[in-house]
Amino acid sequence: MELGEAQAMMRRIYYHKDSKRGPGKTWEWLMEEVRELGEAIEAGDERAIEAEFADVLAWLASLANVVGIDLERAFLSKYPGRCPKCGRTVCMCATG
Amino acid sequence: MELGEAQAMMRRIYYHKDSKRGPGKTWEWLMEEVRELGEAIEAGDERAIEAEFADVLAWLASLANVVGIDLERAFLSKYPGRCPKCGRTVCMCATG
Repeated sequence: MELGEAQAMMRRIYYHKDSKRGPGKTWEWLMEEVRELGEAIEAGDERAIEAEFADVLAWLASLANVVGIDLERAFLSKYPGRCPKCGRTVCMCATG
Repeated sequence: MELGEAQAMMRRIYYHKDSKRGPGKTWEWLMEEVRELGEAIEAGDERAIEAEFADVLAWLASLANVVGIDLERAFLSKYPGRCPKCGRTVCMCATG
């Protein structure tokens, strides 16, 4: 599935709610899902981990819809096959 | 760009570092990027917002690589074109 399709699907299912909720509260939901993902990983619960990854991506796409960002364009603009810091195709940065 | 391609690209550039860092610390980076995305949105800084969306997706893909999750499969399994709670193609849930 194309990244753009994933974002468009979230727009079709949820934009009527996302747009009313607005950026601040949608970002809070995203934070909460990332927290839940961390808990699922810590618990080692495979099914929950998979579901929480889906939720984080879903809320990231919802937030992108609310603030008018094209996720795929943003991603490829910063990560065009190379590390944005060292410029290499296999990162050689000392940190991170 | 396919979601799977995006995840594979992050694996090629960063897996040697991501795998050493491990799930816990990689999740912490993801949290930090989501915080920075929130700050960029609050500041209304368009260029930073786009860059932070890219970073959140990049770290989500890195974390998926570290814990062995296929992001695209996880996403489509929970969101196959319908809201997972109400089952509709346009969500009618009362909450959220």
